[in-house]
Amino acid sequence: MTIYLDHAASAPLRPEAAAAWLEASREVGNASSIHGSGQVARRSLEEARERLASLVEADPAEIVFTSGGTESINLALKGMWTSRLPGTTGIVLPDGEHHATLDSVEWLAASQGAQILPVPLDVDGRIGHEGFCDALSGAALATALVANNEVGTLNDAAGLARAASDAGVPLHLDAVAAFGHVPVSFRQWRADAAPGAGLVALSVAGHKIGAPVGVGALAVARSARIAPLLHGGRQQRGLRAGTQDVAGAVAFAAAAEIALAERETEARRLAALRDGLVSAVTTTIPDARLLGDPTRRIPGNAHLHFPGALGETLLFLLDQAGISVSTGSACQAGVAEPSHVVLAMGHDATAAREVLRITLGHTTTPADVAALAAALPEAVARARGAGSGRRS
Amino acid sequence: MTIYLDHAASAPLRPEAAAAWLEASREVGNASSIHGSGQVARRSLEEARERLASLVEADPAEIVFTSGGTESINLALKGMWTSRLPGTTGIVLPDGEHHATLDSVEWLAASQGAQILPVPLDVDGRIGHEGFCDALSGAALATALVANNEVGTLNDAAGLARAASDAGVPLHLDAVAAFGHVPVSFRQWRADAAPGAGLVALSVAGHKIGAPVGVGALAVARSARIAPLLHGGRQQRGLRAGTQDVAGAVAFAAAAEIALAERETEARRLAALRDGLVSAVTTTIPDARLLGDPTRRIPGNAHLHFPGALGETLLFLLDQAGISVSTGSACQAGVAEPSHVVLAMGHDATAAREVLRITLGHTTTPADVAALAAALPEAVARARGAGSGRRS
Repeated sequence: MTIYLDHAASAPLRPEAAAAWLEASREVGNASSIHGSGQVARRSLEEARERLASLVEADPAEIVFTSGGTESINLALKGMWTSRLPGTTGIVLPDGEHHATLDSVEWLAASQGAQILPVPLDVDGRIGHEGFCDALSGAALATALVANNEVGTLNDAAGLARAASDAGVPLHLDAVAAFGHVPVSFRQWRADAAPGAGLVALSVAGHKIGAPVGVGALAVARSARIAPLLHGGRQQRGLRAGTQDVAGAVAFAAAAEIALAERETEARRLAALRDGLVSAVTTTIPDARLLGDPTRRIPGNAHLHFPGALGETLLFLLDQAGISVSTGSACQAGVAEPSHVVLAMGHDATAAREVLRITLGHTTTPADVAALAAALPEAVARARGAGSGRRS
Repeated sequence: MTIYLDHAASAPLRPEAAAAWLEASREVGNASSIHGSGQVARRSLEEARERLASLVEADPAEIVFTSGGTESINLALKGMWTSRLPGTTGIVLPDGEHHATLDSVEWLAASQGAQILPVPLDVDGRIGHEGFCDALSGAALATALVANNEVGTLNDAAGLARAASDAGVPLHLDAVAAFGHVPVSFRQWRADAAPGAGLVALSVAGHKIGAPVGVGALAVARSARIAPLLHGGRQQRGLRAGTQDVAGAVAFAAAAEIALAERETEARRLAALRDGLVSAVTTTIPDARLLGDPTRRIPGNAHLHFPGALGETLLFLLDQAGISVSTGSACQAGVAEPSHVVLAMGHDATAAREVLRITLGHTTTPADVAALAAALPEAVARARGAGSGRRS
């Protein structure tokens, strides 16, 4: 039996979400069809939209369902770019963003004439407020993570949104790693924003909180100027064509409702488990260090630096012991590169390859954490023995 | 109990596909993660890719999973456009294509400098071979339906692909309505094509054949030049970023395997049911006419013109009687417009609003068809009484 401590890559499907999916799937009909079967599907879909909207604290009409976080982020950034104010070309791009953001913005820069306006992270992986404000001036759009998906550090989403609003710049927030784990409120973060400025779009994804893979959403303010990425039908305010995945939406809403209902108790439980893990690890491996903000972070995230031990070797050794962890964003995990987030926090390339991202979640037990704590000292010793470029 | 005769909008989920989805969903892990859990997911995904590849007669490495037909078509057309030969701007666009194609090409024309090269349909809704060949000269790319999703008429896919190859133009075929119902072979239709020319991409979708909504695929030739639509990770040859929906892919493969295994027997069964329906209808409603090619069409498709009876009124009256049918593409069905396909076949705007698309599929019984045949005469009489612009 595998001990799964990689919830940030993909959380195990919640049984309630599977049941909701199965029930909705049995309904026959395309939600765009005007006959009775279609309208039954449509009602399930719109009910899911209302439920999800209330959980991200948005209006139902603001929720656009997508195929996942990557599509939500691509739609937001490319859609905002296409509809930007004439003459503006700058995209405020903090260091250490998720690759869906990085690669989309780099594509806009390489082929569409966008100028990247970088913002440094502080030593904890947090977007610097001053650097963000400086970059905003005259920008076409801005983007930022609510919580960093690798190191777990929380940004001041409300402050970033206010700064974007003050600068008259539309902002996309990537809440994929945050939603379900820390408070997320589209409405509050948008408060008092001028039309088309401040927070206009917010991305969330299902499979990070126990919904199926393949469903996500983008909250889009009514005043936002966002062009669609997929053309072909008038579904979802014309922002996302394609037959709507009713079962996926219903399952997403079901998982999100449970995640939000138990968020505070889970946050306390997972933070306690994580703190126990970090404490055990730093006792047995004295030079190991928790990276990222020690308290203002995703509760289930332990991002650890093991000097002298290559992350990918550790991952391999722990996997042999039946424990699944990560070296960073799963999307890049096939490639052994230094973490761009750890680099952006001021560490060198060697350190940026000596990290493990351990992420706890709804199925994690104290025994899981104890097993990892017990396995790590030998794994680290062996990884150091295997050599990773430097000795500690 | 609803009698569902709108399979072309969305087919009922096959129990085997639901079971496959559920089983695959229980596996934990992101298919891009390099630990054991991720690799289990990866194996399921690659096995699904192999199974689907063999069913569309492509190589596994040519299959890119997407969120559905609309995304596949958008990826193909926009990706081919972005990677077109310098100096080429023409897009060969037959009349009567699906709205995912129409709207994508119209967007490329409106905002990216594309020139639309239209191709007329014949009276049966078939793409004229000569017109297609004429339009190809010097074009950047071409697209065509394998089977028209409204009237069901089959195009000569092999002939269109050969013409594109001869002209040195890359071709996308939209097989969303065709796959699972009539023979589809990426490999055969690509035979002898020069690299980058002829058939380079072919779209299919899951929910048209009893797989879940939200999963589709694009077969992409290795030599094809196609830029991605979604950026963010190196998944799927860099052509489609985003966490891969393993359960969706597995369910798609499961549904496709059954659909293909029973294709020929189902084709005979559904064609017989359809012919019986058409015969009954034209007996009781003498001026009703089957549109589209009478034999070279999707077996389960009956597209009927009822002079003097508005399609949307018929749809409403049949819906009241518990029978779900369509007036055309579901994606546009919320809007009572004349069918652009029927117009392209040479009918006037009045006739193009007097049509019903009746589509049979894997759950259809003789009793379903008999119920529709019994209900239609009164519905047509009432619709004519309600007035629809002209009398027959």
